[in-house]
Amino acid sequence: MSLEQIIEADLTWTGEAFEPGVRIKVNEKGVITEVGVFEDAVTTRLAGRALLPGFVNAHSHAFQRGLRGLGESFPKGVGSFWTWREAMYDLVERLDEKLIYELSTQAFREMLASGITTVGEFHYAHHDASESGFAFDEIILKAAAEVGIRIVLLEAYYETGGIGKPLERGQKRFATRSLDEYWAQMDRLEAMIDTSMQSLGVVAHSIRAVPRDTLIALHEESRKRGLVFHMHVEEQPREIEDCLDAYHQTPMAIINESLSVDPRFTSVHCTHTAESDLKEYIEQGGNVCLCPLTEANLGDGLANVPLLMREGGHICIGTDSNSRLCFLEEMRLLEYGQRLRHQERGVCAADDGKLGAPLLTMATMNGARSLGLKAGRIAKDNVADLVSIDLEVPCLQRWEASTLLEGIILGCGNDVISEVCVGGTWHRTRV
Amino acid sequence: MSLEQIIEADLTWTGEAFEPGVRIKVNEKGVITEVGVFEDAVTTRLAGRALLPGFVNAHSHAFQRGLRGLGESFPKGVGSFWTWREAMYDLVERLDEKLIYELSTQAFREMLASGITTVGEFHYAHHDASESGFAFDEIILKAAAEVGIRIVLLEAYYETGGIGKPLERGQKRFATRSLDEYWAQMDRLEAMIDTSMQSLGVVAHSIRAVPRDTLIALHEESRKRGLVFHMHVEEQPREIEDCLDAYHQTPMAIINESLSVDPRFTSVHCTHTAESDLKEYIEQGGNVCLCPLTEANLGDGLANVPLLMREGGHICIGTDSNSRLCFLEEMRLLEYGQRLRHQERGVCAADDGKLGAPLLTMATMNGARSLGLKAGRIAKDNVADLVSIDLEVPCLQRWEASTLLEGIILGCGNDVISEVCVGGTWHRTRV
Repeated sequence: MSLEQIIEADLTWTGEAFEPGVRIKVNEKGVITEVGVFEDAVTTRLAGRALLPGFVNAHSHAFQRGLRGLGESFPKGVGSFWTWREAMYDLVERLDEKLIYELSTQAFREMLASGITTVGEFHYAHHDASESGFAFDEIILKAAAEVGIRIVLLEAYYETGGIGKPLERGQKRFATRSLDEYWAQMDRLEAMIDTSMQSLGVVAHSIRAVPRDTLIALHEESRKRGLVFHMHVEEQPREIEDCLDAYHQTPMAIINESLSVDPRFTSVHCTHTAESDLKEYIEQGGNVCLCPLTEANLGDGLANVPLLMREGGHICIGTDSNSRLCFLEEMRLLEYGQRLRHQERGVCAADDGKLGAPLLTMATMNGARSLGLKAGRIAKDNVADLVSIDLEVPCLQRWEASTLLEGIILGCGNDVISEVCVGGTWHRTRV
Repeated sequence: MSLEQIIEADLTWTGEAFEPGVRIKVNEKGVITEVGVFEDAVTTRLAGRALLPGFVNAHSHAFQRGLRGLGESFPKGVGSFWTWREAMYDLVERLDEKLIYELSTQAFREMLASGITTVGEFHYAHHDASESGFAFDEIILKAAAEVGIRIVLLEAYYETGGIGKPLERGQKRFATRSLDEYWAQMDRLEAMIDTSMQSLGVVAHSIRAVPRDTLIALHEESRKRGLVFHMHVEEQPREIEDCLDAYHQTPMAIINESLSVDPRFTSVHCTHTAESDLKEYIEQGGNVCLCPLTEANLGDGLANVPLLMREGGHICIGTDSNSRLCFLEEMRLLEYGQRLRHQERGVCAADDGKLGAPLLTMATMNGARSLGLKAGRIAKDNVADLVSIDLEVPCLQRWEASTLLEGIILGCGNDVISEVCVGGTWHRTRV
């Protein structure tokens, strides 16, 4: 919370272009009440700066920040997603309250410094060594509050260690043992959150971890409560194979046919999703969250972005394993991965040919849609979450307003971000 | 030039690991004379820092820094390398002495800030609007001297606007009209350079721009003079098709059969090179320069890195179009592009399974090999070119020495680089 502010930077992104002379009025609750050219005296003048809406990170596992640089040695020859998962489980078994708090605050701090003002924390590491009690859930909320980042705690349901298989090793730290237990914990969390900066969402970890009937019931209840729903979907071919063996359907076909997909539904990855499944899913309004740096690091492969663009799919972006935290790099790698695959440029360009605006939309508005927030735009009634770009850094020298956004997204790193604002509160973020 | 120094950081990369307590003695000529644990008093103590050898950028076109954010709108649908080239030619036609100086200093400053201590400037924009006189050549040298970066001016021969075609439009700024003219200019440059920080190399721009017989003669003379030789090779399928039409051989087959390839030869890109051609080239000791960010930006595609690794090829790295200057990002994208393509992790890992060391070797020693320099290692008789890593930045929190290099390469950006040293002279580089 803070006092009422009138903010003006040299340039402000108003949805389609950078414009000069734009003022942003923010009330004491940290919500934007007016945007435009008006007379009220400026309280926060940002000279040499351009403002973007705060980035929305739609998919994170904060504790995986502890893996940075680990699992990157391959003495037995090339590795895979599954060898990486072993390294991740090793970390999970070492987690205690202190460690998960430290890792989460580190990840959230780096997020803020990369322009992320909201994190959707897909949280499945619930328990300490006692393997029950959900002690870690409120630690995540506490870490976010400490750092000052907006959070949607996406609370994960996790029952099986593979379709029809018991939980093993570190997976027991993830256990949700019944829907009753899960919703009781959701109610506890609901009573605990700071509603100005925190909200909740529902997660089925994956078809590997949630039996189909439970998935259906979980999603139905999430719809009754009006909560967003997230799920890992088809990141690896093996998940699809196992699902076909067990249910004679792909994971995405189960989602399309057995759940009522709507704009509150987000499928994370969809790396190997069949074209017809993906098309049907998009038509129902579902979001797709891509995690470019993680999907590259894990060697997952590339989702069908041309189809998503053609069919008007809502792509949002997540930092997932947090092996590197730079949201501008995520945006450009999303486009660059497609360029490498299709040997074409501008795969993510909008119908008008512009590339910067659609990538920014993914990084902001689409993330907010996926997380059920009034955020991602510098506009009335949106939260006052802003990224301040330093126009005087070397990587922006010679900028022109008409190509500035492409210059920022394709040409810059975190050092271009000098301050961020979350709900009206400013943070200086640069090293 | 500076006084004799004894440098000690918390950790120093000695070729295979980070080690504490290592001192580096640098003479007044900026050359390392001793590395190890010895008694001489430290003159330059770098607390909270780790030292890497300076990065060697084996391929740059500095003036293309002026295209940042440009050519990234696609009103006619998706673009290609060839639509991008039109935007580049537009810039070329606007170049005058002031503009190319400004763009070059900007690019070189950003390089230094990303840990690059040597640039191999593949220089073909020779002329001002008069289309002759090579006025821009010495401007490049002046810009490098102004910034304090070590440079190998790779002077390009450029005669045709396509095989058997005259030069058109902006291409006339690139013209070298005969071998005599070219070598006369090389002699002029030789007399002009500051040999402690500058050297020369020979370039055939590409098989598109240099007739085969001229290419053979140019390379022969470069070998007589003991100069390195660089050439763009097979970045785009169309170049291969045109070459097959004209010469009934691929560009790389011409290189293998008509030139005497040796470790001074560098082929840039090799994106679409046939496996057998590439294998033969590597066996002769030729270097391959990959430019991950540029090849992604241009939608070129991915070179056959698994073959290069298997056959002991020498891969070096270039920033090429300088659309983004972050050498750590280049290193990780080199590996990540391969992970996405092959759905495997650790494609660039060495036989011992380590990933960081081989990527660093590409970014340092292999670049120095390609440019004919005694550089790229923190070792006796190498130039004192160093990158100082700030161990206290957020993205390195929780580092451990054994995985620090992987953490830096995969997890960090330019903000981790606090100072660089070029030939004994220190530069603070952070924003």
